[in-house]
Amino acid sequence: MRKKPLDNAPCPIARTVARIGDAWSVLILREAFYGTARFDEFEKSLGIAPNMLARRLGALVEEGLLERRSYCERPPRFEYVLTPRGRDFRPVLLTLLAWGNRHFAPEGESIQLIERETGARAEPMLVDAASGRAITETTHVLLPGPAASERMRERLCRAAGERPMPPVNSNTPDPEC
Amino acid sequence: MRKKPLDNAPCPIARTVARIGDAWSVLILREAFYGTARFDEFEKSLGIAPNMLARRLGALVEEGLLERRSYCERPPRFEYVLTPRGRDFRPVLLTLLAWGNRHFAPEGESIQLIERETGARAEPMLVDAASGRAITETTHVLLPGPAASERMRERLCRAAGERPMPPVNSNTPDPEC
Repeated sequence: MRKKPLDNAPCPIARTVARIGDAWSVLILREAFYGTARFDEFEKSLGIAPNMLARRLGALVEEGLLERRSYCERPPRFEYVLTPRGRDFRPVLLTLLAWGNRHFAPEGESIQLIERETGARAEPMLVDAASGRAITETTHVLLPGPAASERMRERLCRAAGERPMPPVNSNTPDPEC
Repeated sequence: MRKKPLDNAPCPIARTVARIGDAWSVLILREAFYGTARFDEFEKSLGIAPNMLARRLGALVEEGLLERRSYCERPPRFEYVLTPRGRDFRPVLLTLLAWGNRHFAPEGESIQLIERETGARAEPMLVDAASGRAITETTHVLLPGPAASERMRERLCRAAGERPMPPVNSNTPDPEC
């Protein structure tokens, strides 16, 4: 995989998967949300080879999702805890979980998202934070933002062109689109 | 990577990333949402080697996210279009996009999610489909479902134990928890 180019790809999805688009990295983050922090705990929970684990923990620290903290001086031992950027990844894990439950759990659900206060099972869905309106393919479209390159502008506009375009106003990122 | 064990791992996140936990697969799905369908179009848009592309398209077809359709008999040519299961992956892409925009777009946003009707920029957030209430670490917790193994039951309960547990009722997946 061409790691470097994707790191600085114009597309934010590409940048994200360049950083965490690896099954092990996603599972390490899942473990971190369960409270796993020490190297040997990650190793045991995931059944991952130490060299692969070390490389991925290092990358997640470098990308600012985990923080490496000393918990023992002699011998030197470290634990890995989620940073605010890492904690902010939780919605991605929850949408993955919901999709996995819907499509790849023929025997029933092994993990469920539960509302603490009521004990009710929750089904995550996406809405716009400001308006509260549901986000669907019918209602919402991906369009070029202010930092889009010429090429991306052209591609996104062409992709969106099959459906009615939003009216031009101050919130529209690209009036030319 | 131990592909097979993760395929049938009890955790739905593990099952999901075993299937699409690869940067290229996620980007192929992104392209499919832009309307890309033909092999050479994917190849050109992504700058991916043909053998890598063929392998990933094959896997996405096998997992039921893409459907392979003939569009020319002589010579035989195929296109790859999203199935309902593939289209249902869009919320995962949108949460990835939002997270990427928040954390890895120092020069500004290249892609934005726009409400068609108003042209307003949307910021996706997770709510419960039934109650409409926001899903956060404070309000919602991951707990074992009916199909959870003994080991997963124990792990999730231990992980959740640091915070107040939901009251036991008929919706609670595991009254023992």
